[in-house]
Amino acid sequence: MGNSYGKIFRITTFGESHGPAIGVIIDGCPAGLEIDEAFIQAELSRRKPGQSRITTQRKEEDTMKILSGVFEGKSTGVPLTIVIENQDQRSKDYSHIAESFRPSHADYTYEAKYGVRDYRGGGRSSARETAARVAAGAIAKLLLRKFGVDIKAYVSQVGDIKAPRFDELDLSKVEDNIVRCPDAATADRMIALIDEVRLARDTIGGVVTCVATNVPVGLGEPVFDKLHAELGKAMLSINAVKGFEYGSGFEGTKMRGSVHNDAFYNDGGRIRTKTNYSGGIQGGISNGEPIYFNVAFKPVATIMQDQESVDKAGHAVTVSGKGRHDPCVVPRAVPIVESMAALVLADFLLRARSSKL
Amino acid sequence: MGNSYGKIFRITTFGESHGPAIGVIIDGCPAGLEIDEAFIQAELSRRKPGQSRITTQRKEEDTMKILSGVFEGKSTGVPLTIVIENQDQRSKDYSHIAESFRPSHADYTYEAKYGVRDYRGGGRSSARETAARVAAGAIAKLLLRKFGVDIKAYVSQVGDIKAPRFDELDLSKVEDNIVRCPDAATADRMIALIDEVRLARDTIGGVVTCVATNVPVGLGEPVFDKLHAELGKAMLSINAVKGFEYGSGFEGTKMRGSVHNDAFYNDGGRIRTKTNYSGGIQGGISNGEPIYFNVAFKPVATIMQDQESVDKAGHAVTVSGKGRHDPCVVPRAVPIVESMAALVLADFLLRARSSKL
Amino acid sequence: MGNSYGKIFRITTFGESHGPAIGVIIDGCPAGLEIDEAFIQAELSRRKPGQSRITTQRKEEDTMKILSGVFEGKSTGVPLTIVIENQDQRSKDYSHIAESFRPSHADYTYEAKYGVRDYRGGGRSSARETAARVAAGAIAKLLLRKFGVDIKAYVSQVGDIKAPRFDELDLSKVEDNIVRCPDAATADRMIALIDEVRLARDTIGGVVTCVATNVPVGLGEPVFDKLHAELGKAMLSINAVKGFEYGSGFEGTKMRGSVHNDAFYNDGGRIRTKTNYSGGIQGGISNGEPIYFNVAFKPVATIMQDQESVDKAGHAVTVSGKGRHDPCVVPRAVPIVESMAALVLADFLLRARSSKL
Amino acid sequence: MGNSYGKIFRITTFGESHGPAIGVIIDGCPAGLEIDEAFIQAELSRRKPGQSRITTQRKEEDTMKILSGVFEGKSTGVPLTIVIENQDQRSKDYSHIAESFRPSHADYTYEAKYGVRDYRGGGRSSARETAARVAAGAIAKLLLRKFGVDIKAYVSQVGDIKAPRFDELDLSKVEDNIVRCPDAATADRMIALIDEVRLARDTIGGVVTCVATNVPVGLGEPVFDKLHAELGKAMLSINAVKGFEYGSGFEGTKMRGSVHNDAFYNDGGRIRTKTNYSGGIQGGISNGEPIYFNVAFKPVATIMQDQESVDKAGHAVTVSGKGRHDPCVVPRAVPIVESMAALVLADFLLRARSSKL
Repeated sequence: MGNSYGKIFRITTFGESHGPAIGVIIDGCPAGLEIDEAFIQAELSRRKPGQSRITTQRKEEDTMKILSGVFEGKSTGVPLTIVIENQDQRSKDYSHIAESFRPSHADYTYEAKYGVRDYRGGGRSSARETAARVAAGAIAKLLLRKFGVDIKAYVSQVGDIKAPRFDELDLSKVEDNIVRCPDAATADRMIALIDEVRLARDTIGGVVTCVATNVPVGLGEPVFDKLHAELGKAMLSINAVKGFEYGSGFEGTKMRGSVHNDAFYNDGGRIRTKTNYSGGIQGGISNGEPIYFNVAFKPVATIMQDQESVDKAGHAVTVSGKGRHDPCVVPRAVPIVESMAALVLADFLLRARSSKL
Repeated sequence: MGNSYGKIFRITTFGESHGPAIGVIIDGCPAGLEIDEAFIQAELSRRKPGQSRITTQRKEEDTMKILSGVFEGKSTGVPLTIVIENQDQRSKDYSHIAESFRPSHADYTYEAKYGVRDYRGGGRSSARETAARVAAGAIAKLLLRKFGVDIKAYVSQVGDIKAPRFDELDLSKVEDNIVRCPDAATADRMIALIDEVRLARDTIGGVVTCVATNVPVGLGEPVFDKLHAELGKAMLSINAVKGFEYGSGFEGTKMRGSVHNDAFYNDGGRIRTKTNYSGGIQGGISNGEPIYFNVAFKPVATIMQDQESVDKAGHAVTVSGKGRHDPCVVPRAVPIVESMAALVLADFLLRARSSKL
Repeated sequence: MGNSYGKIFRITTFGESHGPAIGVIIDGCPAGLEIDEAFIQAELSRRKPGQSRITTQRKEEDTMKILSGVFEGKSTGVPLTIVIENQDQRSKDYSHIAESFRPSHADYTYEAKYGVRDYRGGGRSSARETAARVAAGAIAKLLLRKFGVDIKAYVSQVGDIKAPRFDELDLSKVEDNIVRCPDAATADRMIALIDEVRLARDTIGGVVTCVATNVPVGLGEPVFDKLHAELGKAMLSINAVKGFEYGSGFEGTKMRGSVHNDAFYNDGGRIRTKTNYSGGIQGGISNGEPIYFNVAFKPVATIMQDQESVDKAGHAVTVSGKGRHDPCVVPRAVPIVESMAALVLADFLLRARSSKL
Repeated sequence: MGNSYGKIFRITTFGESHGPAIGVIIDGCPAGLEIDEAFIQAELSRRKPGQSRITTQRKEEDTMKILSGVFEGKSTGVPLTIVIENQDQRSKDYSHIAESFRPSHADYTYEAKYGVRDYRGGGRSSARETAARVAAGAIAKLLLRKFGVDIKAYVSQVGDIKAPRFDELDLSKVEDNIVRCPDAATADRMIALIDEVRLARDTIGGVVTCVATNVPVGLGEPVFDKLHAELGKAMLSINAVKGFEYGSGFEGTKMRGSVHNDAFYNDGGRIRTKTNYSGGIQGGISNGEPIYFNVAFKPVATIMQDQESVDKAGHAVTVSGKGRHDPCVVPRAVPIVESMAALVLADFLLRARSSKL
């Protein structure tokens, strides 16, 4: 349980870090969608390790293969399955993880919950699973593109270095630098901080901001499946995420209603709002304004330092940092955030087809 | 769609603000649970309007009635249904809402999504729906109590007035004042601010913090149904919520991994962590430490001031504030946050019964 | 769990035989549907006890009340709730059921499964629950009517007395007699048999046949949610049902493919089949031909005779028949079968909205 | 949608007849189950084509590979994925299917529903999909075996040749002959009939009977998810199935209640029934007696004869029988029926863990 997401456009992911493969089944993709395989692969490459000096130096190509659901270049309405074989399955020495619990990892909780655990590289709890989300998210993006919806995420904060607000940025520049912050000056400072942290054999957290534009009015299902509630769940389900806010978010708690309320006006026949503290969602339903939200990522738990912990028997042990890991996860998290947003919006786009007679 | 929550302990709520009744069906409550009706009613009274001068002055008793699922004082395992009749159904003049869209309310989006709308008192989008959640949440609390789980929420922020951290507070004092902040000095300042805002015919936002203790290790289902992802969805589904963070939350983004990691140690045979930036959840699964999270509420959208807007035809109109409304929603949101937390934990408690052979 | 049916047009029923009320929430009814309350009530009257001498003589009016989801005569897209208060709640002597298990009833299995049981009138296992299905089914019929779909059921067999095939009958005559068989001569024989059985203080089984015409091509979801698989589940979930077959059914097992195959032809631009052994469904998807199926009902378990059984302690006891019960369930089952068929088709009608781009 | 089955023990299948692979994800298999790969492969071999002269002569080995969810021979509680590569992908001439609709196949309905269709070998509608069910069913059997549950199916009818009742048969002899009927004399007659039909280039239907013994009391969820309702849905979802009946089934409709009722008695401390017309299920819940049911299969639609039909443009065409197909599907359907039964029972076994406090 728990490995599926979505009601109509529904994905189920599978696979462990060091098993034969990871992958995803999409059940509910409408028939007739052109499946651009190069686009899916390109999205996966935005997430893959080894992209730059500020990400992990592991080399994985994450080459995807479609096993079902596409015929003559189009989706057929039946399950669309994508697999990505794991290249890096060499038998390393994992004894330090097998018997001990790494701090702030899922080792202890998986052991307690299941009584058995694939400890190699974190097994199912590895962020490697997010590659399957990006593959599925690429399909969702192709679907949303047909309806004009655009989704863009970027790094808005690393440590305490913050970028300007999204509406002051040129989001076409996200891919212009290795940290994926569209403001060049801020990006430089972020990169410098990550470099510093990396040399200190430490890690640092950050924030990814995501903006969806041209979303049709009417997406979202009250009362529990509010659009922002599902976006929140989707984001919080990404490894290392600690918080989610949309529109005015936590800052909005300090505001007065007379300032926070978004006045409606008639913009040439289209009803719009003068401000957008609502973040494009009112009563859990999209109102046509840009949807924007922030996703908080903690510092990566794997650090290149010795740490105190315990083993399965409860004895005190020292866990040493090994391997090649990200000093900061947010640059590679950008396509993951976009993918989860796309999956949520694609699902609600289809769910909205039944709201009226 | 969208009016149900939970996989095993599953609730479905119904009802509009000014219809005959609101209510909830709980499908999946295990048989044999003593149903303490006085407790359910007491929980509803913590949420009801008219409790104090800082909440809405509407008088509603919210008397609940059990229609099914209980026999000789115990749950029978079949749907447990609770209804609350709406007392306040007098035919007011709602023409100002019927034709116009109140700013930052759900009027416009419901109209766009459904083409038809029960505009009286906000209809389904009214926060009145949360009474059904509190009734169901009371049952969930009764279930959790059997397993020793305790859930306590309180007001941790109003406007920019903040209470100390939860571990510096005595949470048994939450009900000692009308704003539900267990720190008396902070409570006084919060109440003064709400009074000020109310006299200015305005509203203000705030934050509710929730702490769950004695949660069994192993609750939460990777990868999409992580415990904190479901808590986040549940909280974000409450009216007026704009953000959710757990453990270190947004502040954690500024920290280094070497500080943020929670070292494990052996506490007399029980594995615990020295710090708890993880917020009691690792890899989406509870680790036995206290679970704590913050929920951000925007200022109430209904203000006693004239506001610019448009009507259904797109003409500019002035919307005037009418009726009796809350100047700040967080005091009454405390039992709602607790209820949603209880519903999430009760569901995962039952889901965890299938994780092992 | 288990008290909901449907994916998009989704119902959840509640209530016990002798509790305060039974009812249903429909979540997912599209907005804008005219809700004809008189029609719902008329459907309930087709199911209610006391209609004729061949049904139970209990008098229950089954007056329904809408609690939510309808505004100014139309569905609003939010949960549509219908309740039916139980009139007949007088405190009878149920000690014979409280401690003993009636043969072929659900007394023993509920006791074993839940450990606690509302024994009054069978509690949740009573066929009274089907009134909620009929109320919801009436809404589904109103929705289907908008798309031209017609559903008609009738009694095709009582004991070993069988009516002619459905395509030799005039289905407008179903309500012309008290047994609901459109063939007058067969109806007379069926009624005589039921009278005979009733006087013998016994009961008899039968078959209800259902025909749905003008069903759009394309309803049904491969591979598990085939249209006939869901129809089968829906029918088998009705109390006392022992079997389901569609199209050629069990007789089809004896046929050769060369005879059984339905040849396609072009009927003035519309693709049709010359025969219809497929029963209007191919590969789990409707093909536009009439859908027809048979539902087998066992003889009612409550008989006016002494029977051997055991009590909760395992001691041998004699269970005596008491109360007023149906000698044959099929006449009153006709609207229930139609209702379940309508619920299945309404759900698939909405699900089909997402099959293409 | 529609490619998943089960609530807790939940499978999702994928793959087309002539795509790269078919497969299944099981989400919800409890951790700690020994996964016997040889057993899974053996079950697949019972279903594979080319087993004997009375099945299709296509040769496919159906070699399975586990991609995830198993570590050191045990299930880990995360998605368990099995794939079977399609060997037989050579590019045949499928133009006769590409443009025309084979009678009583899913060609027309898929075309109408999706607007695009993988016509090669029937694509997703091919019975090849059932191999994924058998692989998943083998896991379910391994789980059920831990709780003592045994499931056995056999061929009880071919054309009009019927075997004796299940309680007169030795079900250990099912695999003793190629038609999978445990009664040797009946088996011979069935084989002779199939041979005759095959030589006539025709096909014939039949019935598979399934018996589950030692099923714990208490499985099944009223009211919609009754145990027999889910069994019915599961069976009806198998290709070519036209009917389902359990216990007394359609014959039971002719019986009187005084005969049909199963009297309870105390069998050395265990409550049992003297007869078992209920088929081991009362009120939708297992009562501990053997569960037995019949599944009706129509004659295979692919015959080696010319048939009239239409093409996509609606023009009359002749469709010729090609390839290697089964003259009768029931011998190979035996393991499929068992697998679906196992999947249903495994799911209810886990669901029942939440019925009591």
